[in-house]
Amino acid sequence: MKKLHTLCGSPPVQIRLWDGASAGPSSGEGIIEIRDRSALLRLLRQPEVAFGDLYSSGRLVVHGDLTQVLFHLMTAMGRGAGDAPGLLRWLWRNRPALGSNQAAARGNIHHHYDLGNDFYALWLDRAAMQYTCAYFESPDNTLEQAQLAKLEHVCRKLRLEPGQTVIEAGCGWGGLARYMARHYGVRVRAYNISREQLAFAREKAREEGLQDRVEYIEDDYRNISGHCDRFVSVGMLEHVGPRNYAALAEVMRRSLHPRGLGLIHSIGRNRPAPVNGWIQKRIFPGAYVPGIVELMRLFETGSFSVLDVENLRLHYARTLDHWLARFRAHRTEVVRRYDEPFARAWELYLAASSATFRSSGLQLFQVVFAPPGNNTLPNDRRDLYRQAATPKDA
Amino acid sequence: MKKLHTLCGSPPVQIRLWDGASAGPSSGEGIIEIRDRSALLRLLRQPEVAFGDLYSSGRLVVHGDLTQVLFHLMTAMGRGAGDAPGLLRWLWRNRPALGSNQAAARGNIHHHYDLGNDFYALWLDRAAMQYTCAYFESPDNTLEQAQLAKLEHVCRKLRLEPGQTVIEAGCGWGGLARYMARHYGVRVRAYNISREQLAFAREKAREEGLQDRVEYIEDDYRNISGHCDRFVSVGMLEHVGPRNYAALAEVMRRSLHPRGLGLIHSIGRNRPAPVNGWIQKRIFPGAYVPGIVELMRLFETGSFSVLDVENLRLHYARTLDHWLARFRAHRTEVVRRYDEPFARAWELYLAASSATFRSSGLQLFQVVFAPPGNNTLPNDRRDLYRQAATPKDA
Repeated sequence: MKKLHTLCGSPPVQIRLWDGASAGPSSGEGIIEIRDRSALLRLLRQPEVAFGDLYSSGRLVVHGDLTQVLFHLMTAMGRGAGDAPGLLRWLWRNRPALGSNQAAARGNIHHHYDLGNDFYALWLDRAAMQYTCAYFESPDNTLEQAQLAKLEHVCRKLRLEPGQTVIEAGCGWGGLARYMARHYGVRVRAYNISREQLAFAREKAREEGLQDRVEYIEDDYRNISGHCDRFVSVGMLEHVGPRNYAALAEVMRRSLHPRGLGLIHSIGRNRPAPVNGWIQKRIFPGAYVPGIVELMRLFETGSFSVLDVENLRLHYARTLDHWLARFRAHRTEVVRRYDEPFARAWELYLAASSATFRSSGLQLFQVVFAPPGNNTLPNDRRDLYRQAATPKDA
Repeated sequence: MKKLHTLCGSPPVQIRLWDGASAGPSSGEGIIEIRDRSALLRLLRQPEVAFGDLYSSGRLVVHGDLTQVLFHLMTAMGRGAGDAPGLLRWLWRNRPALGSNQAAARGNIHHHYDLGNDFYALWLDRAAMQYTCAYFESPDNTLEQAQLAKLEHVCRKLRLEPGQTVIEAGCGWGGLARYMARHYGVRVRAYNISREQLAFAREKAREEGLQDRVEYIEDDYRNISGHCDRFVSVGMLEHVGPRNYAALAEVMRRSLHPRGLGLIHSIGRNRPAPVNGWIQKRIFPGAYVPGIVELMRLFETGSFSVLDVENLRLHYARTLDHWLARFRAHRTEVVRRYDEPFARAWELYLAASSATFRSSGLQLFQVVFAPPGNNTLPNDRRDLYRQAATPKDA
């Protein structure tokens, strides 16, 4: 027990067994309770996947603030990782995901995004159904304000002008596409391979009278055709995989006008690492989060000029905190619709993601780029900040 | 002649020989005149180095606006490069510089920066002797205003607070260090290996009563010692070479406080490429300009979080145009002090650099970074733009 706690980098968290044995401070940030012997063995053999599965089934429970406990555990493990014996490190290592073909991509996306629009509507913002990092100009912003501010911030970075054409790769429930069309007078062709999301997006566009300015297309990003003044992708790159970055770069290169601009918004890392094994297996099959060098290789491959990179890491931690709070407010409904292990799995996923952004295991990069010959560039970034991006009435 | 013009991508520039033979439009952007047969042969054999050397000696002359002619030539050659026969492409390729040891670094830096402070004072700004990209909030800004605005912009990005300690790697004539100490109340330890520049920097600091807050240290960046709240380097990375990026990353890692911030300002590229052979040989021995991926590897190696990247490419073109105009205004003096070929070489270097930034062959990146555990980050970038960075009275 003592050894396990030390291997975890001695976090300010108690680890406690079914028989009452424990290690770590009793007055720390919380308690991780392992409820049976075989759970402990599974945890030692394959900690990442086992932690998530045991938590979901209730054989491992956390007393205290889940996000805080995970944050302290991660911070400590970052310090202690080098000290584990070689065999354990080999057992505990993850295997990377390298990208999927179009059929597998469809399967992976269905797994996550076709859980049902109603499920996501329970805990995402009610303004634009954004399942990506929000932008909090103030910590007091509501989730709705911060998600609309994110859309506004993206539009400003793209320097949209009325009449321009935009291609969006991976459009979720279509909120950004509708926002761009409504507030900036552009025409958008938005791609997605999740049928459930597209049905929702099209219905919304009709309701809002935007159907002639926003076209939602059910197809893979590799099949994007035509040209555009602006290319944008928010939260899709995580599903592309580094093996396919060259293909995506080629799509960006052939679509974007020589005097165009593009923006990629993606989770990233300071250094490459595989996605957590449990997240990979249970939540996001096929997901891969690039390191900053891998991310920049996307632009280098397309010979683009990188104009602007902004890291919104702590904004994503805050976004996840909002999601988790709303998820918990609708917990009874989630359990009724799915079951208790499903609810626990999603709580863990949201809490662990927040803790990972807070402990710097994940970053959020917004990258603005342009074809190399484009000399009609914005002179500086003052225009992004002339007025608040946050709407007052959302 | 026709073939040569086509190999150059058919620029809107005439190429003319000593005997009157020519190719390309007579009413184009200008004329490149090759004045003897052996000059033509040298140009064909090793175009990059020969162009510079022949221009310097006056055996190749350019009629029309030098910067414009070079811009059109570069843009066209970017298109035409792939069409050259294999033997020519092999002859014309450059060999990369990979980094220098400390003794060679000293030699390289002396070559360029110890030409004499008086020489640089002729054509750099009179406000802060900045030999790096300025920041033009408006095209009407004077060079003095734009260089002070650059210093201010860098200070804002570093979020300097009174009493903090700053390490500066490669401080030129010390302008940034003095600006930080005077306007932000920080203590600066600034490193440089150019003795001439350091003598100037120390003299200025004494004049301005800043000698107790700014320490100028004659030493290599690899020997930087001690800790700091802020690490900054403006225009030094170009002299480091990619082989030494890991050493620089280690210096940054061991110097910077866990809750610190750093900024690297450097020329870069969209994709890796060697420095132009003539620039490498005659102007900047040992220089290497990183591609965006190579640049990001510096931060990845140090496990830093990249917080903000800004590309100021066209600001550097404008800066170079100012330098060239001032250089020409003092041409008689330069020729008297050195000689005609020296003056022609520097004119070509300044004009070609401007043309390269304008044709996107070079970029200018400002990168803000932080150690991964730092959660005391600026929430957003609005603070950088609350008021103009440009002083009114400079």
